[in-house]
Amino acid sequence: MSLHIEVICTGDEVLTGKIVNTNFSYVTQKLEDVGLSVQWETTVGDDRENLLRAFQLAGERADAVIVNGGLGPTVDDLSQEIAAKAAGVDLALNEDWLKRMEDFFQRRSRVMPPNNRKQAMLPTTAEVIDNPIGTACGFALDIGRARFYFTPGVPRELRRMLEEQIVPRLLAKAGLPGAIFLKRFHSYGLGESHVDSLLSGVEALVPDGSVKLGFRAHYPQLETKLTARGRDMEDIRRKLEPVEREVRKRVGNFILGEDDQTLEGVILKELQAQQATLSLVETFTSGQMAARLAHLPGADPVFRRGVIARALPEVWAAVGLPGAPPDGPLTDRIEFGGTICLAIATEQDVASRKARILGGREWVRLGAVEMGLDCLRRYLQKLPVYERIDFEKT
Amino acid sequence: MSLHIEVICTGDEVLTGKIVNTNFSYVTQKLEDVGLSVQWETTVGDDRENLLRAFQLAGERADAVIVNGGLGPTVDDLSQEIAAKAAGVDLALNEDWLKRMEDFFQRRSRVMPPNNRKQAMLPTTAEVIDNPIGTACGFALDIGRARFYFTPGVPRELRRMLEEQIVPRLLAKAGLPGAIFLKRFHSYGLGESHVDSLLSGVEALVPDGSVKLGFRAHYPQLETKLTARGRDMEDIRRKLEPVEREVRKRVGNFILGEDDQTLEGVILKELQAQQATLSLVETFTSGQMAARLAHLPGADPVFRRGVIARALPEVWAAVGLPGAPPDGPLTDRIEFGGTICLAIATEQDVASRKARILGGREWVRLGAVEMGLDCLRRYLQKLPVYERIDFEKT
Repeated sequence: MSLHIEVICTGDEVLTGKIVNTNFSYVTQKLEDVGLSVQWETTVGDDRENLLRAFQLAGERADAVIVNGGLGPTVDDLSQEIAAKAAGVDLALNEDWLKRMEDFFQRRSRVMPPNNRKQAMLPTTAEVIDNPIGTACGFALDIGRARFYFTPGVPRELRRMLEEQIVPRLLAKAGLPGAIFLKRFHSYGLGESHVDSLLSGVEALVPDGSVKLGFRAHYPQLETKLTARGRDMEDIRRKLEPVEREVRKRVGNFILGEDDQTLEGVILKELQAQQATLSLVETFTSGQMAARLAHLPGADPVFRRGVIARALPEVWAAVGLPGAPPDGPLTDRIEFGGTICLAIATEQDVASRKARILGGREWVRLGAVEMGLDCLRRYLQKLPVYERIDFEKT
Repeated sequence: MSLHIEVICTGDEVLTGKIVNTNFSYVTQKLEDVGLSVQWETTVGDDRENLLRAFQLAGERADAVIVNGGLGPTVDDLSQEIAAKAAGVDLALNEDWLKRMEDFFQRRSRVMPPNNRKQAMLPTTAEVIDNPIGTACGFALDIGRARFYFTPGVPRELRRMLEEQIVPRLLAKAGLPGAIFLKRFHSYGLGESHVDSLLSGVEALVPDGSVKLGFRAHYPQLETKLTARGRDMEDIRRKLEPVEREVRKRVGNFILGEDDQTLEGVILKELQAQQATLSLVETFTSGQMAARLAHLPGADPVFRRGVIARALPEVWAAVGLPGAPPDGPLTDRIEFGGTICLAIATEQDVASRKARILGGREWVRLGAVEMGLDCLRRYLQKLPVYERIDFEKT
C-alpha cells in the first residue's frame, strides 16, 4: 500500500511571497525520485491557530507529514511549541542538543546568544533527527495517525536532513527496499515527448518493474531520469546496466552529460583533455556563452579571450581581419523566431551550423546559447555538429 | 474587518515539483501589494477526492478563495466539475463562452477541437470572469461561506485576470477604497534593515495611515515598496508625493531606478542620451556584465565591444596595449570573499573603485557584476562612483 504523504510549509516569508517556495518543489521532487508521492501541501504563516489546525488536519489524513521551517531561535518560530500542543505533550529542554549548540558556537569562537536555547526545547515524545550543519534541531513525533518530521527552513540543512535521514525512514515505513538510485541523462535538442517515444519499452528490459523512466524539462535542456530500486547497490547496478546502455544508444549524440555533469563542464573537460584553448566571438548571444564558461573553476588557462560586438565592423576589428565586412545587417531582426549561424574553427578545420528557431527574442537567444555550446561539445567529441533538433523550423 | 483569503493551487505538475509554484508567490505578493493578505495555501493534484476536500475545507474557513489551474480542455482538468459538486449544483454549457472560444479559434484560422467544449461547461450558479487572452473561462461561485474565484494556470492569463478582475472584487468585498497604487524604488548597496532604519517615520508623513512601507530583497538589489490607498489616483498621488520625495532624499544615490526601470535599462538610456558608446573589459566577471547589457533592444548602436579574458597578457593584447603586463596573478584567488577592482575611462577622465566583498565565489561574482554596473550608472549620472556599501568589508 502506498504511503499518504503531506508537506506543510511554514513562515510568513513564504506565505506572503517574499520568497518563492523552492523548498517544497525540492522535497516533492526528491520523494518522487525515490518512488514516493506527496498527496497534499499546505502553507501557513507564523500563526499559532493556523499552524495547529494545519497539523491536526494533516494528522487526520496522512501517514507521514514533513513540516518545513519554524525551528529557528526567534519568537515567530513556533514549530516545536505547536507540535507539542497538537501531540498533547509538554516541551522539555533537550540537554544533548543544548550541548551540541554550545559546541557549535564555541567552534566558531562565539558565545551562544540566550534565545538560541529555545531551539533545544522539544516535545517530550520527540525523536531527535540530527542536523549536522546547523543549530535547528530536527525531530519526529506522532500527531493523530501520522508520523510528523520537522525540518529546518535553511535549504542546505533541509536537503541534508531529508536525504540522509527522512527519506530512509519513509522508505522503511512504506515497506520499500531501502536501496534506490537515480540515474540521470541530460540532452539538448529533443523534446520530452520525442525522447519518451524513442525510449518506449526500456522499462520492460527489467521485468520486475524496479526501473522507472521519468523526465524533467527545463528548456533548452531535458533531463531523462531512471529510478531504480533493489536489494543493494550491486543489485541496482545490475538492473540498470542494460537500460542505461539502451538509453545511450537511442538518444545517442543528443546526450550531453550524465548525472551531475553540465554542458559547460563537459566542454571544459574536453578542452583540458585535448590541451586546447578557447576563444569566443559572440554577436546575438551578447556574452551569454562566455558567461556560462569563463568563470568555471579551472577555466582560467583554457578560456583565452571572448569578444562581444553587435556591429560587424567591430567584430572585424576585434579579431584583426583586414578589409571591409560584407554589407547587410549583422543580426537577424527577430520578430517571432530567428536564424542562428555559428562556426567553429581550429587551425586545420572549420565546422558550421545554421538553424531557424521559433519563439520570442529571448527564447531564441536562450536556444542560440545552448546550440552554440552543444555544437562545441559535439565538435570536441568528434560527433556530427549538424544534427536536426526538434526546436528548429526547416 | 480583514478578509480571510486562501489560495488553492491544483495540478500534478506543481504537486510533484515538475514546476516550481511561482503562480502562488505571484498571487500572494499581488494581494499584499494592495493591502490584502493570504492566510492559507493548499496544493493538491488532479485528483477528485482531494480537490473536493480542499474546496470544502477552504469554504469552511475563508471569506474568499482563489483557485488556480484545472480549467483546461483535458480529462485531468477537474476544477469546474469539482466546483459544481462542492457547491451542490449542476454543470451546464455556457453558450456565450462556447461562442467566444469558437471565435478565438476562427481568428487564428483553426477549427476548435471537440474537447475544448469542456471549457464552456460551468456550474449553473457561476458568475463568468472574463479571460480576454485564452480559452479557459474564469468564474466565481459560493462554496460554504466563501466566494471562490477560479483562475487559469497559464501565468499571463492568471496575471491579467487577477489584476483586472479579481483584485477589484476582493477590495470591494473587504470594503477598502478601490484606488490603490504601488510605488517601487530599486537600490543597490544597502541592506534591508539599513534602508528600513533610514526610512524610519516616512509612513507617518501621511497621518491617516494610507501609505505603507515594505521591502523585497533579491540580492544584490533591494526593492523598497510604498503601497498607497485613496479615493482616486489624484488623492493617491497627493498623499504619495511627500513620501516619495523623502525616500529619494534619504536613500539618495543608492536608488538606481524606480518602478519598472532596471539597472541595465537606466545605463542604456543614459548612454543614449549622452550619445555615448560603451566598451567593456571583463576578467573575473567573465562576460556576465556584457550579458546583462548587450542584448537589450536598442543596445546595438551603443554597445561597441566587449572583451573577456582571464589572463592579463590576453587583456593587454585584446585592448592593444604595448609592452608587458605587471607581474602577479590577475584574479584574486577567492576563498571566502574577494577584492573587486574596477575602472571607468572616457577620453577625458578615469574613475575607479575597489571593494572587498565577503561570501562564496559565485556570491562575490554576483556582487561584482552589480557593483560594476552600478558604478557605471553613477558615473553616467555624475554621482560619486565611490560610496561605501553594506556588503563590503573595510
